Amino acid sequence: MTGMLVVAGLGPGDEALITPEVAAALADATDVVGYIPYVARVPAREGLTLHATDNRVELARATHALELAAAGRRVVVVSSGDPGVFAMASAVFEAVEHSPRLADIDIRVLPGITAMLAAAARAGAPLGHDFCAINLSDNLKPWETIERRLRLAAQADFAMAFYNPRSASRPHQLARALEILRAECGPHRLIIFARAVTTPEERISVVTLAEARAEMADMRTVVLVGSAATRRVGRHVYTPRRAG
Amino acid sequence: MTGMLVVAGLGPGDEALITPEVAAALADATDVVGYIPYVARVPAREGLTLHATDNRVELARATHALELAAAGRRVVVVSSGDPGVFAMASAVFEAVEHSPRLADIDIRVLPGITAMLAAAARAGAPLGHDFCAINLSDNLKPWETIERRLRLAAQADFAMAFYNPRSASRPHQLARALEILRAECGPHRLIIFARAVTTPEERISVVTLAEARAEMADMRTVVLVGSAATRRVGRHVYTPRRAG
Repeated sequence: MTGMLVVAGLGPGDEALITPEVAAALADATDVVGYIPYVARVPAREGLTLHATDNRVELARATHALELAAAGRRVVVVSSGDPGVFAMASAVFEAVEHSPRLADIDIRVLPGITAMLAAAARAGAPLGHDFCAINLSDNLKPWETIERRLRLAAQADFAMAFYNPRSASRPHQLARALEILRAECGPHRLIIFARAVTTPEERISVVTLAEARAEMADMRTVVLVGSAATRRVGRHVYTPRRAG
Repeated sequence: MTGMLVVAGLGPGDEALITPEVAAALADATDVVGYIPYVARVPAREGLTLHATDNRVELARATHALELAAAGRRVVVVSSGDPGVFAMASAVFEAVEHSPRLADIDIRVLPGITAMLAAAARAGAPLGHDFCAINLSDNLKPWETIERRLRLAAQADFAMAFYNPRSASRPHQLARALEILRAECGPHRLIIFARAVTTPEERISVVTLAEARAEMADMRTVVLVGSAATRRVGRHVYTPRRAG
């Protein structure tokens, strides 16, 4: 089967952060496929079919999108942020791997502004030196792997960004992550809770690890942790370029 | 001194990857400040003064931009990619820290598509699971720090992105980094050399660590290294969401 599939990032929320490349792909699409709240960001128009599905069905969603593309539709799979960062791009390639009959579809990934970089920009430049991005969800990997990675990241003195820090079904992981960070980094390390960045519900809080509580995060929050060199300057937080 | 300064990311090269937010800031600017090749990407127009400076003078450039802003100009400092990722945002906050008289200037950072995410999108989804970003330049930090961070990142099984992997004045660091990675990750690990992504000079090569040579990178290259789970599917490279 041939065909073409676009996997596009809608950025963190603000329309002004959607790249012209992604806007053009959406304008040309016959079908948009994605998680309900992201598909809701694409305006309805004649000739466009919106396929909104629930969370945690990424592989089925990706396979459905590939099948539509194979049938000759112009399909865009949407993610918030960047599709390659804890989002739909990996699920699409996983679906191709599982369905060799879909292997001939031409897949294009269009980058977007990912949540951690939008959050960092709002706060100043906390990711201004070496940093890492960790998905705190243990839906698809053992929690022990996450704990080990957190400790090594702290020992490497990376600044860090946590995606999916907390949800109703995973209320306890972030508290445990904060405990590990306090043990590795001490109480004074800066931490930023950035909720719903660039939307009307945006809220940015900067606290120390001693002050941080898991309840400061929810499903719409990305959490940034400074390196040893990260500091405040005025109302901003930044990591100097010289950070050792 | 009061005033307003915008620090904006121009993305990796393609105009279609400049966000409308950044385009609007540039359209409203009286002054654009930055490294020569980035300022060259901003079209000249009446009422706009372009201030292009050489590399390695980031702090002086940032102070100059802040002084222009303090004098009432509408100044945009431009970086390629995202200004918060190994770019001008940190230098601007560093300049504020060094010059308390510039502390009242309102600074806004506007995110952009950073090179590693544009490169990852072109390759598939190699950063689809936990990953880190490391500046391989030892201009501002000891090489020993970089080596230690590389080893810990490999032990944490992060996918990795290397910025500034190689330049005329630093020809040997990348070869040493590849040695370390071969020792930690073995010969079969996938590595992507992504040069001048989204420009007419774009070139993407996917090789194994055994095949990788430092000469495959230059100043315009970002290097992506897979995690243990990263693999090829068709012409793409991706890291599954389940990566342990």
